[in-house]
Amino acid sequence: MVQQTPVTPRGPGRPRREISMGDVADAAAALFNEGGYEALSIESVAERLTVSRATLYRTVPTKEHLLGIVLDWYTSDLSSRVEEHLAKVSNPSEALEGLIRIQVDAAIRTKDYFAVLVGGAGVQSDAYRRWQKWSRRHERMWRGTVERAISAGVLVESDPEVATRLVLGMALWVSRWYRESEGYTAEEIAETAVNLIVHRH
Amino acid sequence: MVQQTPVTPRGPGRPRREISMGDVADAAAALFNEGGYEALSIESVAERLTVSRATLYRTVPTKEHLLGIVLDWYTSDLSSRVEEHLAKVSNPSEALEGLIRIQVDAAIRTKDYFAVLVGGAGVQSDAYRRWQKWSRRHERMWRGTVERAISAGVLVESDPEVATRLVLGMALWVSRWYRESEGYTAEEIAETAVNLIVHRH
Repeated sequence: MVQQTPVTPRGPGRPRREISMGDVADAAAALFNEGGYEALSIESVAERLTVSRATLYRTVPTKEHLLGIVLDWYTSDLSSRVEEHLAKVSNPSEALEGLIRIQVDAAIRTKDYFAVLVGGAGVQSDAYRRWQKWSRRHERMWRGTVERAISAGVLVESDPEVATRLVLGMALWVSRWYRESEGYTAEEIAETAVNLIVHRH
Repeated sequence: MVQQTPVTPRGPGRPRREISMGDVADAAAALFNEGGYEALSIESVAERLTVSRATLYRTVPTKEHLLGIVLDWYTSDLSSRVEEHLAKVSNPSEALEGLIRIQVDAAIRTKDYFAVLVGGAGVQSDAYRRWQKWSRRHERMWRGTVERAISAGVLVESDPEVATRLVLGMALWVSRWYRESEGYTAEEIAETAVNLIVHRH
């Protein structure tokens, strides 16, 4: 998922002077995935990209900008996974089950970021606004899947708007309570969520 | 729920010099319920209690302390409601349904406080630790009800720990998305949550 962009070869002692936002996003996302929020800093990204901090500061002046970049990466990755899944399955039950699995998995992978996002602090405000806009699109896409599940009797008859938010909330809140040390896998948690609400045929 | 503690009569022009924590909690909770997080300040509490700010500052030096007091009030109120409910019903389905209703109602009433709590910021750290401790007790109590619901076939067969957190999360997350302007009532939302997961007999 995180790719190293090929770098033009250069001689020793000649540090890179140009970096792309794509490079920064890949490095920041990799650091975030490996070590969480704490692992993310201008210094650690600069080191990973083998550029000087001064060079990186020109592109990314603060940690808030870095968080914004990770946020954009995370949302577009999640959207891609959802779109791929929905393009692949036609059965309403499988569509909903897949969405729950993808969302629980994302909740766990981004758990260190959750408090930052929900608190609404620490994120560059432009990025936070983009995230809120994305959240609304994401919810609409979920809602379409929930509506089809209700029509097919896979979910109990209910208001699709409220049902969407309840099911999505169930998955999102996993960010809050998941602890690797407890030994539950993303798959087990998602499977329990699916069993609780999905009426398989 | 919020009661005015009787105040010893005093002549005009003689401001109160002594206030109890109970008075402060009632006033702060009432302000918080009426106007949310924004309505809560040392000034507004002092005004409601008809004491000088200087007097209140002696008992409650900062807004963080006020938040801590509201938090303690909220958790003990929620615990009381849950205990009363569980003492009243013996049917496992009614027990679980009532917990969901109480939790959704609490989620809506405290929605302005949610980001503050989840973000873990803005709360006096002692109060935050007390809240975390309370949360664990609250979750254990929920878990007992979930276990009985699973045994009775009211909830689908599942890991009770994971099922508890998923159902609790579904209710807690209502804090995040509830908007009065959308016209859904706490009862409608709780009813949808109950329908999604509870198998009534």
